[in-house]
Amino acid sequence: SGLVLVKNPHLDSMEEDVLYHLDLGTKTHNLPAMFGDIKFVCVGGSPNRMRAFAQFMQRELGLAGDGEDVADVCAGSDRYAVYRAGPVLSVSHGMGIPSISIMLHELIKLLHHAKCRDVTMIRIGTSGGLGIEAGSVVITDTAVDSSFQPRFEQVVLDEVVVRSTELDKDLVEELLACSRDIPDFPTLIGHTMCTYDFYEGQGRLDGALCSFSSEKKLEYLRRAYDAGVRNIEMESTAFAALCGLCGLKGESCRFHLL
Amino acid sequence: SGLVLVKNPHLDSMEEDVLYHLDLGTKTHNLPAMFGDIKFVCVGGSPNRMRAFAQFMQRELGLAGDGEDVADVCAGSDRYAVYRAGPVLSVSHGMGIPSISIMLHELIKLLHHAKCRDVTMIRIGTSGGLGIEAGSVVITDTAVDSSFQPRFEQVVLDEVVVRSTELDKDLVEELLACSRDIPDFPTLIGHTMCTYDFYEGQGRLDGALCSFSSEKKLEYLRRAYDAGVRNIEMESTAFAALCGLCGLKGESCRFHLL
Repeated sequence: SGLVLVKNPHLDSMEEDVLYHLDLGTKTHNLPAMFGDIKFVCVGGSPNRMRAFAQFMQRELGLAGDGEDVADVCAGSDRYAVYRAGPVLSVSHGMGIPSISIMLHELIKLLHHAKCRDVTMIRIGTSGGLGIEAGSVVITDTAVDSSFQPRFEQVVLDEVVVRSTELDKDLVEELLACSRDIPDFPTLIGHTMCTYDFYEGQGRLDGALCSFSSEKKLEYLRRAYDAGVRNIEMESTAFAALCGLCGLKGESCRFHLL
Repeated sequence: SGLVLVKNPHLDSMEEDVLYHLDLGTKTHNLPAMFGDIKFVCVGGSPNRMRAFAQFMQRELGLAGDGEDVADVCAGSDRYAVYRAGPVLSVSHGMGIPSISIMLHELIKLLHHAKCRDVTMIRIGTSGGLGIEAGSVVITDTAVDSSFQPRFEQVVLDEVVVRSTELDKDLVEELLACSRDIPDFPTLIGHTMCTYDFYEGQGRLDGALCSFSSEKKLEYLRRAYDAGVRNIEMESTAFAALCGLCGLKGESCRFHLL
């Protein structure tokens, strides 16, 4: 049916669903009227960047309001920012798996309550590249953890549940085809490694703590490269797992910053 | 000496240290002049709340500028917000361990470069209470993980390192003594459980996914209570581990929201 799935039998018996961190709710807002026509959701870490992206989409789509500032749909919360430009929703998620997970749970329920159909979710943003040209865009085929395994370990109460982190193959090819239409836009497909830490977890030598040598760091990054990893960030495994479970066509595209 | 410790031999040989997510650096800013007199750092999730807290401190300390808006010290970055009121720094950290970890690495280096001495770091904010009166404040004696163990598992490259999550006992008692001077301010000491997920990880029945029954949830929360847990949040183990390793007197005080 193309609808967004929630997998929670308790939701049906709830009188009201408050999407707390988005400052939205089923009793306070008419979610189908506000969001029923959304077809694309783009998510990224920084609220300013996601506002800039919504303004860019407004211009690209030739929408009324072109050039004007876009309004934050959930201005009553400073946890996340949500902007819309026509059928595109642009949402910030902060940094790291716990932060994106809270947002995705509430966003997926929002799309479900709004009765959206055939929604494509794309994660955009920056990442650290591995053995690739600076300025490249990596389209993720599979998100992997710090041991290069295609899995997301979710703690449910105190049990560890392992979830798949594969992304939509057709969408990967579609996005790669788009990139070919743009000159000087180096784009490649690869694995994306997702870590829980930016400094010690990604082999950085400039954190407040660092217990490894430059050689040890390079040896680790070389092993990651050999396993197919082309960029490193902090949200992709949770993103892939949640999109997959809820029937969303999901993809992660990251710009290699340095 | 009371100085803030960094445990990274690579830092000494770096010409410049850019605190990227704070939009500060050792070459672009005079950190000792800007921050050398800081004695207290209070951190919390929401940028708006941390601004309100800095304004509150300004009033409480009777500082010049009382009532005026405080300026974000790192306004060039929308990742975190930093405000100061006299010797108190008020810093937002977003949600979850990865988000607070990035901020703490950079904040600890900031305090180190600024040559601050005898700094006390206090995490403030809201949390979910367990078997306690709504509106209570929990002062954490020990942060525990989702298995109720007093440990923080940090992935360094691809190795798991286990770190202690004990907090400063004297500070716990000092804060409890402060609370006694204020009428109608229910305050208690207890363990704080730190999870990587807000919905499935904390037994909530209203996420996009939920695979457990209400009974299973209650059984888990009961076991947590019996293990000494009095509140649940998403940053305390990483906070305790990093403060402990870097010689900061650290403490977590959370207000039980509901």
